[in-house]
Amino acid sequence: MEFSSQLLENAVAEIAQLPGIGKRSALRLALHLLKQPEAHTQRLATALTAFRKEIKFCEQCHNLSDAPRCEICSNPARDKSLLCVVEDIRDVMAIESTSQFKGYYHVLGGLISPMDGIGPQDLTLDSLIRKIDSGDVQEVIFALSATMEADTTNFYMYKLLGKFPVKLSTIARGIAVGEELEYTDEVTLARSINTRLPYEKSIQQ
Amino acid sequence: MEFSSQLLENAVAEIAQLPGIGKRSALRLALHLLKQPEAHTQRLATALTAFRKEIKFCEQCHNLSDAPRCEICSNPARDKSLLCVVEDIRDVMAIESTSQFKGYYHVLGGLISPMDGIGPQDLTLDSLIRKIDSGDVQEVIFALSATMEADTTNFYMYKLLGKFPVKLSTIARGIAVGEELEYTDEVTLARSINTRLPYEKSIQQ
Repeated sequence: MEFSSQLLENAVAEIAQLPGIGKRSALRLALHLLKQPEAHTQRLATALTAFRKEIKFCEQCHNLSDAPRCEICSNPARDKSLLCVVEDIRDVMAIESTSQFKGYYHVLGGLISPMDGIGPQDLTLDSLIRKIDSGDVQEVIFALSATMEADTTNFYMYKLLGKFPVKLSTIARGIAVGEELEYTDEVTLARSINTRLPYEKSIQQ
Repeated sequence: MEFSSQLLENAVAEIAQLPGIGKRSALRLALHLLKQPEAHTQRLATALTAFRKEIKFCEQCHNLSDAPRCEICSNPARDKSLLCVVEDIRDVMAIESTSQFKGYYHVLGGLISPMDGIGPQDLTLDSLIRKIDSGDVQEVIFALSATMEADTTNFYMYKLLGKFPVKLSTIARGIAVGEELEYTDEVTLARSINTRLPYEKSIQQ
């Protein structure tokens, strides 16, 4: 692309560094900003800078937080015997939106992925062990996605935490609510048959 | 969405104001920035602010430019008898990349679109008339997209410029190079039949 303006070219190049945004979309976004009042761009730039500069990780659960300790960890009313291990803040938000979990979280900050050069040492596993070692936790729930990397991470944690007197569980995998059996992939269907549960248990929910 | 951080929420809200980016994508982009060095976000913010604040419109063609007059308009070697009217900078870039046009441009800054509240007064038509009135231009080429708004704008300009002793032409519409006749829509095909041209002319290109 040949730009008539260096300023535009710089802006487009920077926007296009974001994942999933190509040069053409970046140009469209830059031209959009130009049609908006200047204050709009200023607000965007300030919000990004402030976020990147001032955001903290909760010292307890490693979730993103404005304070040294996040709101969930600061809430003494939650159940400290339950610890839910998740990949990142999006999973905390997803689980919180169900209002079904009253324990605390532990954010790993990633998943073990040799392909991407992410090993166990890049996750917050040391802090997880310290937390479990301190004794309050009775059950650790692995709430990771259903991907290969998540399975690897689950297994690693399973081995790592096996020596502690805590119950280790993972969230159920099976047919999503509303989904038709016919269109469910075999692996999911096989799992859901192998991990079947007593009917009475399924209607308690 | 329930955020654990106001800083994150602000950043996501601002990013999500951009066209085509929803809250979920905005969150993904914000978390991406967090994984990059802080300087990265700083560069992005600076590039956006500088672009929005310092960019100029060329006093001649109204294209985006860093200087009061853009590079194309500052080039005396181009053909001043030819004036190509386009919607915005993307079209200038597209036509320049073909290296086929050696005249000057005139950027309208939009298309007439009553649905979006954009009327002739919002385009750079006064300046276009002044330019043509000054006498150097011999042919005005309407190089707009093939949309309803573009057709309306073409027709408006045709009426507006009819009184000047200049040739008015529009870029050809028809089957794109490499396209199969069978899959061409009827409107395009009908136009390409009605605006057929002598074979010798088509092989001169």
